Formats: sequence, structure tokens, C-alpha cells
Amino acid sequence: MSSPDEGSSSSSLKQLPWFVASSQLLGLAAVIVVGVWMGHYRGGFSWDHGVLEFNIHPLCMVIGMVFLYGDAILVYRVFREEDKKCIKIIHATLHMCALISSVIGLVAVFDFHNSLNIPNLYSLHSWLGIITIILFAMQWLLGFIIFLFPGGTSTLRAWYLPLHSFFGVTIFGMAVAASLTGITEKLLFTIKDTYSKFPPEGILANALGLLLVAFAACVAYVVTRHEWKRPGNPEEEALSLHFHRITRGDEEED
Amino acid sequence: MSSPDEGSSSSSLKQLPWFVASSQLLGLAAVIVVGVWMGHYRGGFSWDHGVLEFNIHPLCMVIGMVFLYGDAILVYRVFREEDKKCIKIIHATLHMCALISSVIGLVAVFDFHNSLNIPNLYSLHSWLGIITIILFAMQWLLGFIIFLFPGGTSTLRAWYLPLHSFFGVTIFGMAVAASLTGITEKLLFTIKDTYSKFPPEGILANALGLLLVAFAACVAYVVTRHEWKRPGNPEEEALSLHFHRITRGDEEED
Repeated sequence: MSSPDEGSSSSSLKQLPWFVASSQLLGLAAVIVVGVWMGHYRGGFSWDHGVLEFNIHPLCMVIGMVFLYGDAILVYRVFREEDKKCIKIIHATLHMCALISSVIGLVAVFDFHNSLNIPNLYSLHSWLGIITIILFAMQWLLGFIIFLFPGGTSTLRAWYLPLHSFFGVTIFGMAVAASLTGITEKLLFTIKDTYSKFPPEGILANALGLLLVAFAACVAYVVTRHEWKRPGNPEEEALSLHFHRITRGDEEED
Repeated sequence: MSSPDEGSSSSSLKQLPWFVASSQLLGLAAVIVVGVWMGHYRGGFSWDHGVLEFNIHPLCMVIGMVFLYGDAILVYRVFREEDKKCIKIIHATLHMCALISSVIGLVAVFDFHNSLNIPNLYSLHSWLGIITIILFAMQWLLGFIIFLFPGGTSTLRAWYLPLHSFFGVTIFGMAVAASLTGITEKLLFTIKDTYSKFPPEGILANALGLLLVAFAACVAYVVTRHEWKRPGNPEEEALSLHFHRITRGDEEED
């Protein structure tokens, strides 16, 4: 659309790719760092019902519940001009990949616990993690039913859209918080006696925590910045108009 | 303002007090639970340079960096119709109280570490916590200078307002994440051997973590829901108009 502020709007749009690129660098760095931590310092990966199987857990959770989840949220901003139906399918598919990766990660840790007779689900990390996964799966299912198949009425979609967006970012934040408690747990279970002497493994794992927070903040900024929201198109007009009607009155008062 | 949707808007406003009340119940419950954890299970509080001084740390951080911080964010929604200047002063004062409480909490833990020759700032919890406090203090200072005294130009304020809001909620989320890693650390330093047997202390501390997450989610929902933003008033018109000009063009495209 044309407005007196088109200039400032297009100049703000020029920043978008830099923020998206930064998010990808931070997210990939986090995946690499957790891989190095488990692969190099914790002995590598194997489906052996032992500690090497445990190591699959942090890797799969960071790939699924953080990196892929964050990227799934970002697709609406990265592909701002593409067909919305197509982006919805990419959004749902990336979330499904995130869920599959997380389930593999969960099986790995339950399998490890069970074979070593370690109780499951007693720690804050596990409580927070399991609640996050359940909410994530529910959010995926509701999103799929209401926005993709069979698809809700336009009233239902307009009502659910802001809730879906809010819970999307909130559950993503919970996933990152669960990761941070997981890093803390793993360090205190493995290098408790040397952690306070600033060993490379401790510094690497702390850096992983900060990378996850930076990635989450970058993703949250990109998806909440008003100027970067998708421009409307005729296809979405009916829903969009309805959505405007029920929200605009109050937004005017901002 | 009057609009065809005034009805639906005022019906959504009726939900606001319930969400605010829920946030207060969750926040107060978190403060009580951390008090019971430290007071009952960890021996109470004393400025003795020992473990009882450490216990002041979690209590002050939860009161300051979570409860007061959350409430400071909420004042703009709770007092929607009051004079904005007055609410700004309450917002800044509550944040200052949060900062003072956090500094007392920080002194307590540094004092405890130093008297027992425990190194400072080696863990992920401490890295995350100290970064959060530094960002919080910078955000407070910038907010004070730009919005209160001496006050920035309307252009500067309009540019900074969305950044201030974004970082406000993000740093709040970081404070909650830092608390969760702190709870995990404390449990593994004190009841590591019995934690997996579901002792009352472990369950209480896990519940504290969930209360903090629920409080944060409730506060974030209240402050990000569009219909609950403050209605404008003539006093704010100049800033508000300018702010509308630079954001509206894009919001229309939502």
C-alpha cells in the first residue's frame, strides 16, 4: 500500500533479512555447540540404552524444540510475499519435524533412565519439559484443525489467531527455559566438582545457554515487530477484514 | 471511542480484572512458596555470611526480578484510565523497588560465596542472572531518561517505545528463566541424592518453577493483548499521533 511513511517502512524492511540471518547464525551455532558438547566432551552418540543414548536427548531437543520451532515461527516473516496457503503448509511441516525430533529426544532419555533404573519426571526440568511438549503438540493439533484441515469458520479463525500466536511464542519461550534447566542439570550431574574452576566444557555449555536465549530473543523480535507482519492479499481478505473489525476499534486507541 | 465493536471490546475488558487477579494470585503464591522453601526447608534467613544469608538471595530475586517487575509492567493495563504521567511514575518506582530488592539478593549471594571461598559467576545461572540484571538496569535508566527526566523528543520517544516494550517483556522472561536455573542449581546442591525420590522439598521447588512460568505467561498475555492497551488521551496526543504515523501504514497491512 502507499502511504506517506512508505519510505520509512521499506527502510525498516531492509533490516529484516539481517535479523533473520542473525537468528539463523545463532540457532545453527547452538545446534553445533550442543553437538560438540555431547559429541566431544560426553563421548558421542549411540542407541546403546546408556549414557551415549542420553546424549541424543539434548541434541534432538535443541534441534526440534528450539531451532526448528523458531524457524517454523519465522516462515511468515521470511516469506512475506509468498502464497499464504503454501507458507501455512511449511509452518505446519516444520512444526511436525520439530515434534518428531523432540519425540526421538524424549524416547532417548526415557530409555536411558529405564535401563539404569533412574526414576522419570522428578525434576523441574522434566516437569517443565513435558508440559512444554504437551502444550506444543496441542497447539500443533489445534492449528492444523482450525487453519488447515478441515479448517474452522472465519469467526473461529479470527478468534483463535491471536491466541495461536501468543501461545506459539510463549511455548517457544518455555522450550528455551526447559533447555536452560536441562543444561544446568547435566552440568551438575557430570562436572559438579570442577564446574566452578571454569573448565572448557562448563564454559561451552554456559555459552550454549546464552546462544539459546539470544536465538529466542531474535526470533521473538522478528515475529512481534509490527512493520514486519505479512502484507494482506485478496485471498485472505475475508478473514483479515473480519479480524480487523474485531480488533481495530481498540488498536486505534493505542 | 465509539465503534460497531464497542460491545465486544467492553466484553473483552470485563475479562481483564480476572487475568490481573490470576496474575497476582500466581505471583504471591510464588513469593510464599520461595519463602516457605528457604524459611522452612533451608533453615530460614539471617545476615550471617553463611547459608542462611544465601537464603535471602532466592527470596529477594523472586520478589524483585519476578513479582515486582511483573507488576510494574502490568500497571499500564490495571490503571488504564488514570493519568499517564502518574502511572509512569508508579511504573518507574516499582521497577526501582525491583532493582533494590535484586541488589540486596545479589549482595547476599556474593557475600555467601566470598565468605566460603566459593568462586562467583561460573554457572549458567549466574551468567544469565547477571546479564539479566545489567539489561534490566540499562532498560530502567534509558526509560527514565527518555520518558521521565529530562525526557526525549517525541521522535525519540516514538522510536524507543516499541523497543522499550519488547525488551521489557524479554528481560522479564530472562529473569524467570534465570530463576528456573537457580531452582535447579539449589536442588542439585542440596537434595541431589533424594530429589529423584519425590521428597516434599523437591515437589515444592518444582511447583515454584511452574508458578513462576504461569505468572510470567499471565503477565505477558495481559500486556500483549491488543484490546487491553491504554486508550489515548489528549495529553499523549502529540506522541501518539506521531507514533501512529510511523507504524499505522504497516499495521493496516496485517
